[in-house]
Amino acid sequence: MNNDFIGQLIDIVGKNHVLHTPEDLAVYSYDGTFAEGTPDVVVLPENTDQVSQVVKLAAEARVPIVPRGMGSGMAAGSIPMMEGGMVISLTHMNHILEIDTQNATVSTEAGVITADLQAAVEKIGLFYPPDPSSIRHSTIGGNIACNAGGPRCLKYGVTGDYVLGLTVVLADGRILKTGGKPIKDVTGYDLNGLFTGSEGTLGLVTEALLRLAAKPRYAKTVLAEFDSLDDASRTVNAILSAGIVPASLELMDQTAILCIEEAMQLGLNTDVEASLIIETDGADEQTVTSEIEACANICRESGAQSVKLAQNEADRASLWKARRSISPSLARKAPNKLGEDITVPRSAIPEVIQRLRAISAKYGLPIVIFGHAGDGNLHPNILFDKRQPDQWQMVEQMVAEIFETSLAVGGTLSGEHGVGMLKRPYMEKALGSISIDVQRHIKQALDPLNILNPGKIFTN
Amino acid sequence: MNNDFIGQLIDIVGKNHVLHTPEDLAVYSYDGTFAEGTPDVVVLPENTDQVSQVVKLAAEARVPIVPRGMGSGMAAGSIPMMEGGMVISLTHMNHILEIDTQNATVSTEAGVITADLQAAVEKIGLFYPPDPSSIRHSTIGGNIACNAGGPRCLKYGVTGDYVLGLTVVLADGRILKTGGKPIKDVTGYDLNGLFTGSEGTLGLVTEALLRLAAKPRYAKTVLAEFDSLDDASRTVNAILSAGIVPASLELMDQTAILCIEEAMQLGLNTDVEASLIIETDGADEQTVTSEIEACANICRESGAQSVKLAQNEADRASLWKARRSISPSLARKAPNKLGEDITVPRSAIPEVIQRLRAISAKYGLPIVIFGHAGDGNLHPNILFDKRQPDQWQMVEQMVAEIFETSLAVGGTLSGEHGVGMLKRPYMEKALGSISIDVQRHIKQALDPLNILNPGKIFTN
Repeated sequence: MNNDFIGQLIDIVGKNHVLHTPEDLAVYSYDGTFAEGTPDVVVLPENTDQVSQVVKLAAEARVPIVPRGMGSGMAAGSIPMMEGGMVISLTHMNHILEIDTQNATVSTEAGVITADLQAAVEKIGLFYPPDPSSIRHSTIGGNIACNAGGPRCLKYGVTGDYVLGLTVVLADGRILKTGGKPIKDVTGYDLNGLFTGSEGTLGLVTEALLRLAAKPRYAKTVLAEFDSLDDASRTVNAILSAGIVPASLELMDQTAILCIEEAMQLGLNTDVEASLIIETDGADEQTVTSEIEACANICRESGAQSVKLAQNEADRASLWKARRSISPSLARKAPNKLGEDITVPRSAIPEVIQRLRAISAKYGLPIVIFGHAGDGNLHPNILFDKRQPDQWQMVEQMVAEIFETSLAVGGTLSGEHGVGMLKRPYMEKALGSISIDVQRHIKQALDPLNILNPGKIFTN
Repeated sequence: MNNDFIGQLIDIVGKNHVLHTPEDLAVYSYDGTFAEGTPDVVVLPENTDQVSQVVKLAAEARVPIVPRGMGSGMAAGSIPMMEGGMVISLTHMNHILEIDTQNATVSTEAGVITADLQAAVEKIGLFYPPDPSSIRHSTIGGNIACNAGGPRCLKYGVTGDYVLGLTVVLADGRILKTGGKPIKDVTGYDLNGLFTGSEGTLGLVTEALLRLAAKPRYAKTVLAEFDSLDDASRTVNAILSAGIVPASLELMDQTAILCIEEAMQLGLNTDVEASLIIETDGADEQTVTSEIEACANICRESGAQSVKLAQNEADRASLWKARRSISPSLARKAPNKLGEDITVPRSAIPEVIQRLRAISAKYGLPIVIFGHAGDGNLHPNILFDKRQPDQWQMVEQMVAEIFETSLAVGGTLSGEHGVGMLKRPYMEKALGSISIDVQRHIKQALDPLNILNPGKIFTN
């Protein structure tokens, strides 16, 4: 990276906001995956105008741009594909700009941590539902780039369902504003939908206008334990078919339960094939209670061995602590884990879980299964030891078979993590060559120089 | 249109499915607006493969294609822009292909009438919520092309929220399949979102896979009458801020109420400035009742003159009959009406209604106001007599001022009708030149010959 270019960046954002020492760059060479890629320079702009100027400069110099939030992505979308180029970190754009209580909207910069945004709006009785498990360290901009989900998305929808408007810096540096406060809008193409989930390949989202809901006043949570994984899966369908839409409907298989219990000693029954954590919420206590009771009854009718209603807030917090501790608790079982993110038609969950177990048995490496069963979104986590080169190769083969399994039942490669670098090899098989061609044409139309997050989503 | 081309069309779809006599063509020269445009030929394919072959032929011959359902569109999107070209009517593709009860999805051809699809899924306890007022004669394909809404969309979302997958014939005749049964999917760009609402300018939707909900078992409806329109508007916000999401929250102004009462003699109080029709629904009777009671209380606290709960199904049907009869009843008041479709931030509704009244007073033509207030989606209907040329010119000026009003408060040109031909002149002002440029690039990327519904959405 020549000094002239660095100098021009410094002119735009100031000396302290341009990083280019090896130590500084190393911090931006990782994300939530095993992939690595060190940029030549990292820029930390403070506003949309600076982003625009930086992108213009990069476009002129044909320098690839990797937009980045907190780097917690699970698909290697926010690190350079190989090496080099410029990371634009939006973490300094971390201000909430406006909370409009009357229209229930929040306008925010992209670098705000999602949990901070949630806390800010909840303080005044509003509610931003999407709750990826990275919520305490991922940014709204990153959530928008990946169209992030979370347990609560069964009832409330994913990040994209809350995007009313975006400020996007385009590949040539122009600033595009989409949408607005009206919650229905068919004035032209759905640009909000197009940019959401596009992983920084079509533009850099610097600000967002998000729709809010009213904060639910009550929540009730049940833990249902099943001797049979099949019964647990059928229960998911039975609840949704009864017309109840719980806020969350989470599944954990025996391996997941064992891991949690070993790590946390929460007193979970480990002698079951699967557990469901079900939560209902809303404005009216009676309704929330009658819905959770209906869910509990369906669990019992579907063969649950035990159904425990959280009796108080501490009980409820403990159940969610169990659910949230799956990922960290896996670290105690094996040096490494690789978490996938397939989504399948929910009727296929039992079959998929059987197949995942067969893959695990075939390679002799554990696959822990948990996820948002109501959405059909499962996170199979392979436990392994990366220091043994054989294992990494096996893991790659297992991942390929997990994706094959998902596609075979009409599922997808990703429900909420995105494609990034890691799922590119499977894209054509998943979507077909015509879909890839259409998407490439869109990419080319909006980024003809291919400088925005090149190598992500599509193989070059 | 040369005989050779007609002959080739006949080879693809058969003689009875190619129309080209003046009488036959005239039927396809109208839609739900005042615009007219006669095609050179109308083709009625029976399956996606035929559509694909017809589009390929048209692309080779550079014949513009206008996709059409039942022609009930409100923005002149489904008739030729000026004259000529080919209408592809999808009304013969009217089969429901599969109802998957376990995953709650329906796969359907684009030409199925939306009300027929709703009836078919409701028969087995499922529910397709979007309910445009054209529901008994518009097609699912048309609804997808415009991303149609309706009263129930406040709680349930618009057409696009139910689109899981599409079969799309592209501008070169290739067949694209998007999405699938999984309800979360971030594998690549959101093509469902891009094609939905694109008004046939990016591809022809021939089949759709739609998400279904469980059919609500109970519904309760209230009519609240207000001396003050401001109070009625504030009530809308108060209800939504209380965390209640009614299925519908409809507003009618005094002129609308007067029209209905004159036409139907339903016993509505015409001595009020506005009425709200509020409906709650769901799986649990107690919940639905407690929610409607909460709404009724908020109406009373917000100054409603009277609040009447429908006591039985006949009562409820009568309230909806009133709401649905607004549009037809206007025909008794004036020879012509022009219905607009602005959506505004809901906090701006009182101001917008005041401004609409001022426009009405300025030109001396009545503007009837009703719509989906919970969504901020208002349908100002101008009543006039087209036989008087002065009036048509005035109406056009009034429409321009209605759009100005909407944009001035951060609103849009359309909430559920689309842009078509009629709103093109206002697009740049509404969205800005950069947004238009981005959209044009997308259009060009997917339809480089500009043969798919040319002249719609964008001015050429």
